[in-house]
Amino acid sequence: MRMYDLIYTKKLGGALSPDQIAFWVKGAADGSIPDEQSASLLMAICWRGMTTEETLALTLAMRDSGKRMNLSSVPGTKVDKHSTGGVGDKTTLILGPIVAACGVPCPMFSGRGLGHTGGTVDKFAAIPGLKVELTDAEFIRSLAETGFANSAPTGDIAPADKKLYALRDVTATVESIPLITASIMSKKLAGGADALVLDVKCGPTAFMKTLEDAQILAQSMVDVGSAHGMQIRALITRMDAPLGWAIGNALEVMESVEILRGEHGDSELAQMSFRLAAEMLIMGGAAKTLIEAQALVEACIQDGSALETLRRFTALNGGDAKALDDFGRLPQAGQTVDILSDRAGHLSAMDGRALGLLAMDLGAGRKDRNDVLDLGVGIRVHGRVGQRIAAGDRLFTIHAKAGARIDPAPYLATLQITETRPLATPWLLATIGC
Amino acid sequence: MRMYDLIYTKKLGGALSPDQIAFWVKGAADGSIPDEQSASLLMAICWRGMTTEETLALTLAMRDSGKRMNLSSVPGTKVDKHSTGGVGDKTTLILGPIVAACGVPCPMFSGRGLGHTGGTVDKFAAIPGLKVELTDAEFIRSLAETGFANSAPTGDIAPADKKLYALRDVTATVESIPLITASIMSKKLAGGADALVLDVKCGPTAFMKTLEDAQILAQSMVDVGSAHGMQIRALITRMDAPLGWAIGNALEVMESVEILRGEHGDSELAQMSFRLAAEMLIMGGAAKTLIEAQALVEACIQDGSALETLRRFTALNGGDAKALDDFGRLPQAGQTVDILSDRAGHLSAMDGRALGLLAMDLGAGRKDRNDVLDLGVGIRVHGRVGQRIAAGDRLFTIHAKAGARIDPAPYLATLQITETRPLATPWLLATIGC
Repeated sequence: MRMYDLIYTKKLGGALSPDQIAFWVKGAADGSIPDEQSASLLMAICWRGMTTEETLALTLAMRDSGKRMNLSSVPGTKVDKHSTGGVGDKTTLILGPIVAACGVPCPMFSGRGLGHTGGTVDKFAAIPGLKVELTDAEFIRSLAETGFANSAPTGDIAPADKKLYALRDVTATVESIPLITASIMSKKLAGGADALVLDVKCGPTAFMKTLEDAQILAQSMVDVGSAHGMQIRALITRMDAPLGWAIGNALEVMESVEILRGEHGDSELAQMSFRLAAEMLIMGGAAKTLIEAQALVEACIQDGSALETLRRFTALNGGDAKALDDFGRLPQAGQTVDILSDRAGHLSAMDGRALGLLAMDLGAGRKDRNDVLDLGVGIRVHGRVGQRIAAGDRLFTIHAKAGARIDPAPYLATLQITETRPLATPWLLATIGC
Repeated sequence: MRMYDLIYTKKLGGALSPDQIAFWVKGAADGSIPDEQSASLLMAICWRGMTTEETLALTLAMRDSGKRMNLSSVPGTKVDKHSTGGVGDKTTLILGPIVAACGVPCPMFSGRGLGHTGGTVDKFAAIPGLKVELTDAEFIRSLAETGFANSAPTGDIAPADKKLYALRDVTATVESIPLITASIMSKKLAGGADALVLDVKCGPTAFMKTLEDAQILAQSMVDVGSAHGMQIRALITRMDAPLGWAIGNALEVMESVEILRGEHGDSELAQMSFRLAAEMLIMGGAAKTLIEAQALVEACIQDGSALETLRRFTALNGGDAKALDDFGRLPQAGQTVDILSDRAGHLSAMDGRALGLLAMDLGAGRKDRNDVLDLGVGIRVHGRVGQRIAAGDRLFTIHAKAGARIDPAPYLATLQITETRPLATPWLLATIGC
């Protein structure tokens, strides 16, 4: 088999066989196929796409390039969640403890942040002492004892995806439905969960700009998961403004705990987290209907068992559980600066991506893969889209390093303040799957 | 400037600026841009194409990556010819001496063969002693003293093209109109000729399968040449059967000499060589009309001055000029084997590409860039398309290494012998340019 023939076939719009795809993935991972040939094939895939069969074969080949987690020692249907990435998205910190508290095991592998989006692993790392890279034994123990486990993925899971992703990152071939599908689903299938809820973000600053594209990606992932006997369902959610009031790692832990305490229950963040949790509970067999599932979610918030699960998970994995009740124990910023509105009107739009980049500049996110984060810094967003603003109202509180100069102009530029009130748009755009 | 942004722009179908293209070509040549990024951009160019301005910029950037020949010490309009490659194509050996004999200097850089097509340099190398890699001084001396110069291109001419071509060769990105245009034209512009005749081959086994594609490529090259003040004209010629009776290096020298002696004057090879030579004479100012130019060609064949020019060129560059009159002095094959027809009918088609590959297998061509050729071996084609064949007629004489076993089946399989006589098709399909 010659790599040249694979590239040529795809260049002309043909389909590759499962054997050809396995040959490529193996060769890309072990270095026997040079990067320039993989890069050329990746661009040809962006051009010509892949059939469902090809996407399936690519997913399986990448899954089989490394180890597969065996979670069979933990009883029950294990349910995972994946989000395609949003600014201020701390839903995992909220729904993981909720789902576990309702009796459904929730094993999750989360990523580190890069660019404007934060990573769940970084958010957990803001809890002092909490171990965010678990061994297999620690991961399974956490899942068995608390119902929840979260870890940065080890290099052993889908190493071919890691290799190909690094190549896609420098060759402008990240944005491709089959490549995104295979990258996500190979890791999820290797992670060992039985069921998966997908949160596919859609909006001008998300990967998927249009509802149509988001639906195609969601359907592609649902098809691949279903074909491998995984229960899978996708929610397509709007992404424009940041999710919740917190951007930045320790701040996002605080906001998550507040929601688990029952605060901000009517916020979009709480509504989205609860809905995703409810979907997971149905998949895990804890509820039959959405109404039933939502009642379970509500109950574990009210009786404190969700927050207690987060405390137990934290303590078991070396973290300071007291920090969840005493935020003074979390990393703090050196200074806080308020940014006030210079005009009156309706807050009609907020650019989440721009705010994510500003938070990155403060030190809450990574420009480069090797950057070290300042876990205490970030942005508290006071306004909500749709709200009426008066001149002098506080819009943001910036949590910055001591001595950093904060220019309000770029923050104010992320907002649209208009005379007319904006139309309210729902956060849930569509659902796909069983 | 970031290479990523160039790839991303082209992926989305945008145009690159001349500065961006120069940045890429320089980086690809000096290694500062990794091959995987160039490979990805090359495939994106195959996908999205290039505007005329982009193709111009790419051509110039590649031309300027190395030295430019300065032929100004030789008086007159220097006229070159380029063919996109055919089996049995020895037109350079014929038209170079003709054009020079008519007083128009003809400086040519020719390639080595690879795969089913032979290379002009290899054909000249079959003349014992003839130096086929000339220094600049030797090249200019040959042009000044005989009117004709031919050399393998030195690595100093368009090294960026050499680097990118090697990458295209393994990444299935050779077939792209702007990339082919820039590759050819960068070398031709660096070669120092004032005028250029292009022979763009068209047919099922050529790069350009359809007349439409061949016209687009020809127009693209004519546009680039014209934009740089070069006189340029393209002939689109049919390629299916081999050109002439000889495939193989020494055999092709023999056939060229025979045509320069005035033999086979009605063959397609002679007609094509004479027409290309006539076009070159018009560009070089030796004739005003095609009829006038064709009369000059005819005269220099009749009076022997064309063949005498080849003898002088050969002797000046260290070659055995006597071998042009005594073919026994040329490299010989170890054995000859005749292949006879097993049926009667009309010879209606001949697969030039398959015959080129068979000649390669005999040792006349290279499977791999580093293969060493046997200059004496090859195929003598006795039949011509359109001819009536009787069972037992001699179709081919195979000139092979001593002891090689020749299976007639693959040779017979290159021919279509039918009951009905095929329609005659012209070899000249279209002309493009001034």
